[in-house]
Amino acid sequence: MAMNADTLWSLLVTVRERQPLVHNITNFVVMNNSANALLALGASPAMVHSCDEVEDFVSFSHALVINIGTLYSEQIAACKLAAMRARAVGVPWILDPVGAGATSYRRAVANALVRLQPNAIRGNGSEILTLVRQAGGGRGVDSQHGSKAVLDAARLLAQETGAVVAVTGAVDYVTDGAQVTAIANGHPLMTRVTGLGCSVTAVIGAFLAVELDPLAATVAGLAVFGVAGEIAAEQARGPGSLQVALLDALHTMTQDDLAQRLKLEKVNP
Amino acid sequence: MAMNADTLWSLLVTVRERQPLVHNITNFVVMNNSANALLALGASPAMVHSCDEVEDFVSFSHALVINIGTLYSEQIAACKLAAMRARAVGVPWILDPVGAGATSYRRAVANALVRLQPNAIRGNGSEILTLVRQAGGGRGVDSQHGSKAVLDAARLLAQETGAVVAVTGAVDYVTDGAQVTAIANGHPLMTRVTGLGCSVTAVIGAFLAVELDPLAATVAGLAVFGVAGEIAAEQARGPGSLQVALLDALHTMTQDDLAQRLKLEKVNP
Amino acid sequence: MAMNADTLWSLLVTVRERQPLVHNITNFVVMNNSANALLALGASPAMVHSCDEVEDFVSFSHALVINIGTLYSEQIAACKLAAMRARAVGVPWILDPVGAGATSYRRAVANALVRLQPNAIRGNGSEILTLVRQAGGGRGVDSQHGSKAVLDAARLLAQETGAVVAVTGAVDYVTDGAQVTAIANGHPLMTRVTGLGCSVTAVIGAFLAVELDPLAATVAGLAVFGVAGEIAAEQARGPGSLQVALLDALHTMTQDDLAQRLKLEKVNP
Repeated sequence: MAMNADTLWSLLVTVRERQPLVHNITNFVVMNNSANALLALGASPAMVHSCDEVEDFVSFSHALVINIGTLYSEQIAACKLAAMRARAVGVPWILDPVGAGATSYRRAVANALVRLQPNAIRGNGSEILTLVRQAGGGRGVDSQHGSKAVLDAARLLAQETGAVVAVTGAVDYVTDGAQVTAIANGHPLMTRVTGLGCSVTAVIGAFLAVELDPLAATVAGLAVFGVAGEIAAEQARGPGSLQVALLDALHTMTQDDLAQRLKLEKVNP
Repeated sequence: MAMNADTLWSLLVTVRERQPLVHNITNFVVMNNSANALLALGASPAMVHSCDEVEDFVSFSHALVINIGTLYSEQIAACKLAAMRARAVGVPWILDPVGAGATSYRRAVANALVRLQPNAIRGNGSEILTLVRQAGGGRGVDSQHGSKAVLDAARLLAQETGAVVAVTGAVDYVTDGAQVTAIANGHPLMTRVTGLGCSVTAVIGAFLAVELDPLAATVAGLAVFGVAGEIAAEQARGPGSLQVALLDALHTMTQDDLAQRLKLEKVNP
Repeated sequence: MAMNADTLWSLLVTVRERQPLVHNITNFVVMNNSANALLALGASPAMVHSCDEVEDFVSFSHALVINIGTLYSEQIAACKLAAMRARAVGVPWILDPVGAGATSYRRAVANALVRLQPNAIRGNGSEILTLVRQAGGGRGVDSQHGSKAVLDAARLLAQETGAVVAVTGAVDYVTDGAQVTAIANGHPLMTRVTGLGCSVTAVIGAFLAVELDPLAATVAGLAVFGVAGEIAAEQARGPGSLQVALLDALHTMTQDDLAQRLKLEKVNP
């Protein structure tokens, strides 16, 4: 699929029309934000994490979002049950390995979830590097987190897992292990609002629900969210008003907004 | 009690003066929203869900709100303990059976809570229909969710349980099993903000705390919240700013706001 | 350390420069607010509460914030593990004993945490009085919560525990058991937003991370937060917009803002 402002816009229109049901097992900090981001985008969020029902619930959902931000043992069990069922019934899912490298427990959990074959993974540079060290073993990935090292790690993780991998930062990179797309939208003030990384993962989930190609879906989620962040930053007086304006911008985004602001390019390997 | 702008306003004044303590056992998505809605209204919210203390806590509260949005086994136990104690000591309580029909687990939990005799139940059409199928058994309620079918279901649920039942949507209906009141306030943009249904349930809880007639209390909660939503929608640029403005409007609502905007009518059976 | 607008400003600059990692084990109502307050201030928040990782996580954090708002047994265990490790490795920590007096369970938990030697404790008058009754036993503290009684209780609690104690209200008091500082910033509308007390505790945590003297750190957190609340209240139309503007004000606060608004004075014993 060719990815440009027209095709991304048409994916956004599809989300708004179909209002896909996006099942989230996410952290307590961002449950509200993620649900609101999905609603503002036009999707239907559900936050469901009991082991007693996640398998049933994911079966009739259109995508699954798993985020380990405030992980605890019972929720991890729910994540595993939901991810396995999602694979079994063909519901696409995305993993957000929040803080994957912070503790050995968190590393182990993130690694176990990666093995359950997410269709997409979104993390920052440190998180993606942590997953590669786990998956690849022994490969000397630059711990300085230089962007070249991170990009190599993302490509390697995609190759090893079959997932599309997104590394987000000042510029976001998305790769399927072969081609790499860069998205240069967004605004630095977004780093001063909690959970916007988690929210963009949820937004990518909504695009995975309507687009079979996870590369296109991931690019669409990052681009739409980044453009909304830019619009919001122009209206904001600080991080509080940024968060409010970002939800407004997701809801009101027009084809012109996307076309005029989109900064997308293929990266030469 | 005659329900009109004057009597509803006087209930709002009572909430603001008494600042009733409203005990919430609610879902993680909306804990913050519900607490803020209650504070903006003038009530005193408490979010307390440990089995180790819910019975003690509900005993000195003025109302109890139970919401099963992100249910899990331990919280359900807490809900049951709190609801039973509430009945025993005469604290009114309201049930919000979020997503009651989504999974068999959720249906079973909602049904079990209905049997603990809430004074009021608030849900959308699907949720109320699910409860009626559980409670009534075998009755062929229209699964198309036509408003006539939903209204019949609400009336039946009220008759079978003794609870006042509110079905919310573009128009809200409240019934005690005999009379039906319709409230046509609110704004469509409210459906793009997460947890406003949960928040209005909490707000009804605050009115239950100061008004013995659960029908009047439920109508008051829906009317005040709907009017606040309308005021907010006029100022909002999207769902983010709507949520902010709604809290402002709950806090600043005047008698004139309520009188000029209230759309209340009795429905002929 | 002399506490005036210059020294407090220099502490804020230090927080912004060092971006200390503040580990929070806090309640579900305010996780998002507290994280956003810390980000707006310039710190790096982490919300981590699994018993499987809190000890690891606190070891490389710069401060720990423990808040019992929505306590439950497993989280209490996590709080104890984290607090003990914090003491062992020299990470400063602050306790927010939310609702300490509400139930016997909550009193017992708050008391157990106080014995784990927090560097600072922040509560409202009732909470501090509850802790003193627990710690001191038998002393006839005025249950009318007169400000003199509360101030005596705070001083006594500080003496008995070695913690700096802050009692917040219309005027905030901070004491190390000997000297008492009063901060008269803030705005009454702040009481109509949920979790601002919890947020200021988190903000004090950020100052504890960069300032060895817990008295100065606590005063700085209360002063900066109070001044931000005042700025926000001037722009707000109600509690919804106050919360948004408060985050903006924390982020944009200038030396002049602090110098012109600070209301700090030593209280004569």
